[in-house]
Amino acid sequence: MILIINGPNLNMLGKRPKDIYGTETYEDLKNQINHFAQNNSIDVGFFQSNSEGQIIDRIQKSDFEALIINPGAYTHYSYAIRDALEIVNVPKVEVHLTNIMARESFRQNSVTSSSCDGVISGLGFYGYILALEYLKEKLKEQA
Amino acid sequence: MILIINGPNLNMLGKRPKDIYGTETYEDLKNQINHFAQNNSIDVGFFQSNSEGQIIDRIQKSDFEALIINPGAYTHYSYAIRDALEIVNVPKVEVHLTNIMARESFRQNSVTSSSCDGVISGLGFYGYILALEYLKEKLKEQA
Amino acid sequence: MILIINGPNLNMLGKRPKDIYGTETYEDLKNQINHFAQNNSIDVGFFQSNSEGQIIDRIQKSDFEALIINPGAYTHYSYAIRDALEIVNVPKVEVHLTNIMARESFRQNSVTSSSCDGVISGLGFYGYILALEYLKEKLKEQA
Amino acid sequence: MILIINGPNLNMLGKRPKDIYGTETYEDLKNQINHFAQNNSIDVGFFQSNSEGQIIDRIQKSDFEALIINPGAYTHYSYAIRDALEIVNVPKVEVHLTNIMARESFRQNSVTSSSCDGVISGLGFYGYILALEYLKEKLKEQA
Amino acid sequence: MILIINGPNLNMLGKRPKDIYGTETYEDLKNQINHFAQNNSIDVGFFQSNSEGQIIDRIQKSDFEALIINPGAYTHYSYAIRDALEIVNVPKVEVHLTNIMARESFRQNSVTSSSCDGVISGLGFYGYILALEYLKEKLKEQA
Amino acid sequence: MILIINGPNLNMLGKRPKDIYGTETYEDLKNQINHFAQNNSIDVGFFQSNSEGQIIDRIQKSDFEALIINPGAYTHYSYAIRDALEIVNVPKVEVHLTNIMARESFRQNSVTSSSCDGVISGLGFYGYILALEYLKEKLKEQA
Amino acid sequence: MILIINGPNLNMLGKRPKDIYGTETYEDLKNQINHFAQNNSIDVGFFQSNSEGQIIDRIQKSDFEALIINPGAYTHYSYAIRDALEIVNVPKVEVHLTNIMARESFRQNSVTSSSCDGVISGLGFYGYILALEYLKEKLKEQA
Amino acid sequence: MILIINGPNLNMLGKRPKDIYGTETYEDLKNQINHFAQNNSIDVGFFQSNSEGQIIDRIQKSDFEALIINPGAYTHYSYAIRDALEIVNVPKVEVHLTNIMARESFRQNSVTSSSCDGVISGLGFYGYILALEYLKEKLKEQA
Amino acid sequence: MILIINGPNLNMLGKRPKDIYGTETYEDLKNQINHFAQNNSIDVGFFQSNSEGQIIDRIQKSDFEALIINPGAYTHYSYAIRDALEIVNVPKVEVHLTNIMARESFRQNSVTSSSCDGVISGLGFYGYILALEYLKEKLKEQA
Amino acid sequence: MILIINGPNLNMLGKRPKDIYGTETYEDLKNQINHFAQNNSIDVGFFQSNSEGQIIDRIQKSDFEALIINPGAYTHYSYAIRDALEIVNVPKVEVHLTNIMARESFRQNSVTSSSCDGVISGLGFYGYILALEYLKEKLKEQA
Amino acid sequence: MILIINGPNLNMLGKRPKDIYGTETYEDLKNQINHFAQNNSIDVGFFQSNSEGQIIDRIQKSDFEALIINPGAYTHYSYAIRDALEIVNVPKVEVHLTNIMARESFRQNSVTSSSCDGVISGLGFYGYILALEYLKEKLKEQA
Amino acid sequence: MILIINGPNLNMLGKRPKDIYGTETYEDLKNQINHFAQNNSIDVGFFQSNSEGQIIDRIQKSDFEALIINPGAYTHYSYAIRDALEIVNVPKVEVHLTNIMARESFRQNSVTSSSCDGVISGLGFYGYILALEYLKEKLKEQA
Repeated sequence: MILIINGPNLNMLGKRPKDIYGTETYEDLKNQINHFAQNNSIDVGFFQSNSEGQIIDRIQKSDFEALIINPGAYTHYSYAIRDALEIVNVPKVEVHLTNIMARESFRQNSVTSSSCDGVISGLGFYGYILALEYLKEKLKEQA
Repeated sequence: MILIINGPNLNMLGKRPKDIYGTETYEDLKNQINHFAQNNSIDVGFFQSNSEGQIIDRIQKSDFEALIINPGAYTHYSYAIRDALEIVNVPKVEVHLTNIMARESFRQNSVTSSSCDGVISGLGFYGYILALEYLKEKLKEQA
Repeated sequence: MILIINGPNLNMLGKRPKDIYGTETYEDLKNQINHFAQNNSIDVGFFQSNSEGQIIDRIQKSDFEALIINPGAYTHYSYAIRDALEIVNVPKVEVHLTNIMARESFRQNSVTSSSCDGVISGLGFYGYILALEYLKEKLKEQA
Repeated sequence: MILIINGPNLNMLGKRPKDIYGTETYEDLKNQINHFAQNNSIDVGFFQSNSEGQIIDRIQKSDFEALIINPGAYTHYSYAIRDALEIVNVPKVEVHLTNIMARESFRQNSVTSSSCDGVISGLGFYGYILALEYLKEKLKEQA
Repeated sequence: MILIINGPNLNMLGKRPKDIYGTETYEDLKNQINHFAQNNSIDVGFFQSNSEGQIIDRIQKSDFEALIINPGAYTHYSYAIRDALEIVNVPKVEVHLTNIMARESFRQNSVTSSSCDGVISGLGFYGYILALEYLKEKLKEQA
Repeated sequence: MILIINGPNLNMLGKRPKDIYGTETYEDLKNQINHFAQNNSIDVGFFQSNSEGQIIDRIQKSDFEALIINPGAYTHYSYAIRDALEIVNVPKVEVHLTNIMARESFRQNSVTSSSCDGVISGLGFYGYILALEYLKEKLKEQA
Repeated sequence: MILIINGPNLNMLGKRPKDIYGTETYEDLKNQINHFAQNNSIDVGFFQSNSEGQIIDRIQKSDFEALIINPGAYTHYSYAIRDALEIVNVPKVEVHLTNIMARESFRQNSVTSSSCDGVISGLGFYGYILALEYLKEKLKEQA
Repeated sequence: MILIINGPNLNMLGKRPKDIYGTETYEDLKNQINHFAQNNSIDVGFFQSNSEGQIIDRIQKSDFEALIINPGAYTHYSYAIRDALEIVNVPKVEVHLTNIMARESFRQNSVTSSSCDGVISGLGFYGYILALEYLKEKLKEQA
Repeated sequence: MILIINGPNLNMLGKRPKDIYGTETYEDLKNQINHFAQNNSIDVGFFQSNSEGQIIDRIQKSDFEALIINPGAYTHYSYAIRDALEIVNVPKVEVHLTNIMARESFRQNSVTSSSCDGVISGLGFYGYILALEYLKEKLKEQA
Repeated sequence: MILIINGPNLNMLGKRPKDIYGTETYEDLKNQINHFAQNNSIDVGFFQSNSEGQIIDRIQKSDFEALIINPGAYTHYSYAIRDALEIVNVPKVEVHLTNIMARESFRQNSVTSSSCDGVISGLGFYGYILALEYLKEKLKEQA
Repeated sequence: MILIINGPNLNMLGKRPKDIYGTETYEDLKNQINHFAQNNSIDVGFFQSNSEGQIIDRIQKSDFEALIINPGAYTHYSYAIRDALEIVNVPKVEVHLTNIMARESFRQNSVTSSSCDGVISGLGFYGYILALEYLKEKLKEQA
Repeated sequence: MILIINGPNLNMLGKRPKDIYGTETYEDLKNQINHFAQNNSIDVGFFQSNSEGQIIDRIQKSDFEALIINPGAYTHYSYAIRDALEIVNVPKVEVHLTNIMARESFRQNSVTSSSCDGVISGLGFYGYILALEYLKEKLKEQA
């Protein structure tokens, strides 16, 4: 199973500033991902939490073959999530809906991404789809 | 209803360093606010938590007409609370008991306040009362 | 008497960028404060100057029981006003019309506020009214 | 046509430090992209140069519907490439073979990416494939 | 009772990077401490959490005579834990398994330690034993 | 009328370090400007002051169609003059006799220039003449 | 002859963000300069390149009596152009169409200007005309 | 005549924080200086102002053979006073009552002192006496 | 033999600021350590010097099985001591009497500790005892 | 063959500021090197370019046994040249005519040198001769 | 006895750069001080060393009633000397021959001065005389 | 005579981390230099010390015609050695065995080198030989 973790405020998609995040909701995001997953025979799971601790708890369960994580604002300061990610020895991709390099200066760094294979940012919902493709390929290579 | 959120360690008022925070307790704070609210026919609610995630959960409920928040030490690094506040489209005031500009350097910034209408700091319990007055006035204007 | 000092360019209210400062004038500000003061039997005085030196001269007179000061742009660099405020041993509140934390980075610090009881920022003209209430209460306590 | 620009030293793939960049060559990269493009009926073009000026010249030609760019080391200081990208009004994705956030500190910023839709980094050659998919989708939406 | 708090990811000992943290587990750590405590007639308690808020909740209970805390990655940014520690007026020692001064730059500061008596870092599991000895001695002095 | 404001110590031209500022005086400067103005039928006024407050007072009068300002050392820290300039909605040019970018580091920034149309620096007295030409042209365009 | 060098992306005028750079083209710029030059009997030459190396090559030719240079984005980091300018012992003026002090922070410094007589920025195409006038005057003085 | 300029808030000596500045007043300071001056046949003059502009005006008069200046808080940011001091070609000593290096960090620099012969700080009223002695000696040498 | 090196001013214990360092002397420290060493059959040696060079000379002798070092103020800048420690391949512990993280900012770093196994700070004389215990244990493991 | 690359403006030797670079020309430099090379039976080649891209192209050719490079001003910001040097697996020495540590602050770092064996700076033309000797010795060792 | 400590390279006076330090020697300095001391019945002692450790040793002897120290280059980094000075509870003045605020940036701070009563800098040999006068007066007050 | 000063820990060559410094000893270094010196009829002397003060004492003796110095870790902070070097008016070369630009960030600056003719770093023992050659040549030129 590929787990998709979304961090704080991503459950509020559709209500966040629309010029930045658009009008689609978290449900829409899950639907699009599920649609793609079914068509590609990928088994996906979802987890969303506003709590740094619960995100770490979830990562530590290690019941997944690969991981997609959008740590939301925790991206910028949660060394604790960074350490949790480092422990889990599976392919991991960090995803951001927006291009964090083109936003406020406090969003232009990521302390979590150095524990991931790589980062996809600024490509909207499509970023999750691309991450799934990459992970699917990666898992195939490892098999 | 006007919700009053107090962040980490504010439940410990009366036990924190007394030269800085005084001797009155969190109960005292609630009593004074309730007293004022009743006299002014304002409906208030209280929420206190030491957890960043729970504070975000509470903000996201959006079951209030206006918000007073004292994020405690999260003021200085919680971009996640900042983002949660930005989503909620009601009048919001950040309150600090102490004058954070006259304390340790790590307390001299606020990452959350840019998502609020404004800030009242250094005026003790009275800061909450003034915030209530402002919000009452603001809600009247909007009505 | 509670003195209300306004620093540089606050006499130009109504002509400053309207999306930030609104359309009301300095006269409007004085009228609203006077109105509130009369209703609450508070004796207020006003002083406006664009000159750092004159503001310091005025503060040094010490002919007031309490002080409200909006140092305008001097907020960000006038250690001389800071020192003058420190000398005057009465309740003092710093007020800013706008939320300085949500504006240009050079406006996100205050060198003067550490010599005041506290700060109210971002609540518009209402900030002055709240400061008056706080000071009235404070003077009552001291009496 | 979707143009794929590769900056300085990317023509040396296979000869660069192998623990970081692997053993596959620039020819291998082009072959894999061509293979994918043919299978997906995408028209692609390639351009590689070690010269900042030639990269800008190529971008200014604007004879493409979408752009993938890996600016190599210019990522970290070429505001001139950044400005060239800003002018070209087509979908653009910045790609990095390695996870620049997990390398030397001088590689942890990108001055060019704020002129692109987004960034894919750390996913190896696969990053180019994912960028193609995103751009194909994007062009379909616009059509 | 002397309480021993371990922060995020310390429950994963044995699975964290082995060249840095070794192969022994959190259970091993507890066993070694218990062994020492029994031999020295010290009453110890354990608490581990990945959640900043729960760690603060636990500290606030104040049902211990002395405290050992390894805040994990929260060491580097949790001013909220720092404030909680400051309130609890008992002997407190901060412990780190690794020598944080010899690791990545983001691990070379501690915002929590200024609320403790002192710090022991880099001495592995033995650091906890030494902290216990210090606290035992300290409690004896106070008695 | 085009007003020409000169800030602190510019009245001392001819007495300032001669290798930097040359030997001509403030009177010489005014003469050269007057000569040019008469030949070009431009109505000019002059104001010089060492006082930040008086410069702001003069700007606020707004009795001019265009403005040339050399804020002298206030260039580097007077946010109050910057705010005053922002209010006055006429063409404005900042002029510096010397090339401030080629001098001491504290002279290499300008906090006032972002409220002007542009800056001319390093071209000596001739900078004022060029500014007059620009403003004459600009006023013609607006007419 | 007075040479006018324009750096990267200035050949794209009219296609760059119009709210910043306007709608006139590089051809328009050359026409306006030529028109002025003919009326004032000044011999001008033009050179535009996106390449740092070619700009340095051109400067080194030293076949001009005076120089106007708009280094575009190279302004902010090309110490190599700075060194080339320093060698050429003729009057030199740096010109920027926009007021670089009022734009993004990375555009608020100039590493090249300390090798020029001075800088004219923010006055649009007119900045080139003013630079020509200054240089004409300067050459007359030297003659 | 040796002029002694005192900047902002030094007229308030005796009312400033007593643990830092002591209980003696500005009158006491003048008396002690006058006493010393008469005994040593030195002609002294005094000037105190809270206004940066007036201090510059006074320096520019240049009607003194030597200068003692305590710029108060302007020490830390007034480049305009610095420039005024640089013009006046007489022996100059900067004096501070307190040891500015042992106070708040914002007081640990002096932008004005590089235009003076030297600095005496931390020696209280006696610092002025020592400065007078130095200047007397210096004037004798020059005679 | 376990060598205990104490750096500058530690021979002055009892005369240093008592609120920070207490009233016990360097002799007291040696006595307490000797007492513990005898009871635990540990062979200890002492060396104290105010000289950076002599401390390095002593370390280079390498006539000890383990090392405790309190480098005093050299902790904060002596890369030379750091390099000397790195050469000596025995267990090493850095000890500080006070909690350097809770003191002046210049004391909040240690350049020497990255060449030691770990650090014990803030536990007073007891820190040396704990370091001895750790080293005894470590030597036993190695034997 | 040992290749000697000289970067921007080094072809202008003799025309650059003479107090810093002396009066000898690039031809003189080549003559002195050739003279030494012939006497020592070393085969040398020369390449000079003002273009970052051409320097990288030349390095990538890899048709030399060893390399001397003086990257001129590119020393301070060309990560692209740094990456090109890293790929070429031969002995490499960076040479600077002047002591870059004793010049302007922007010249006091080198981003390229970490890809070379070492650096010789400040020894004028002689630096190239010494580099040749080192490389000759190094090649002998490898043979 | 008033001890006068001079740090590294002050024994070389007369041989140091003469435009900064003049032509008089260390012997001249001692002669002038002795002359003044005899005329004023002050008992003085001298100590000069290039060694940080020996300076600390000398300070710790504490066989003086007052201290003048010119720490030379140690001023800028010797926290060890700073700590030694702090222990000695007598009047202390730091003296610098030159105005360190008007020299290279690395000389513009003093880490030692916060342990002294105050600082006299830039007044040449006369600075020592003034320091003696201050200390004589201070000792009289204490008597 | 050409003096060769080696600073702290260079006497330990062969025992320092071998991957960085190799296995040859300080004796080996002296032998190689002596061998070269004899073959080239150069008179050399050696001095090694771990003490900053002794190195300064040695430099001040000035009994040499030229100087080679490897200040070891003092390179990075000893302004006192820098000042001593500045006084001695002979040719001087700073040598480092390793390429300090490619090591830890604290080793990437040199405060001493600006008082030398130049620097040779990263070329191992051979760096001393090259420095000797340069100095021999230099002395010949001066003769």
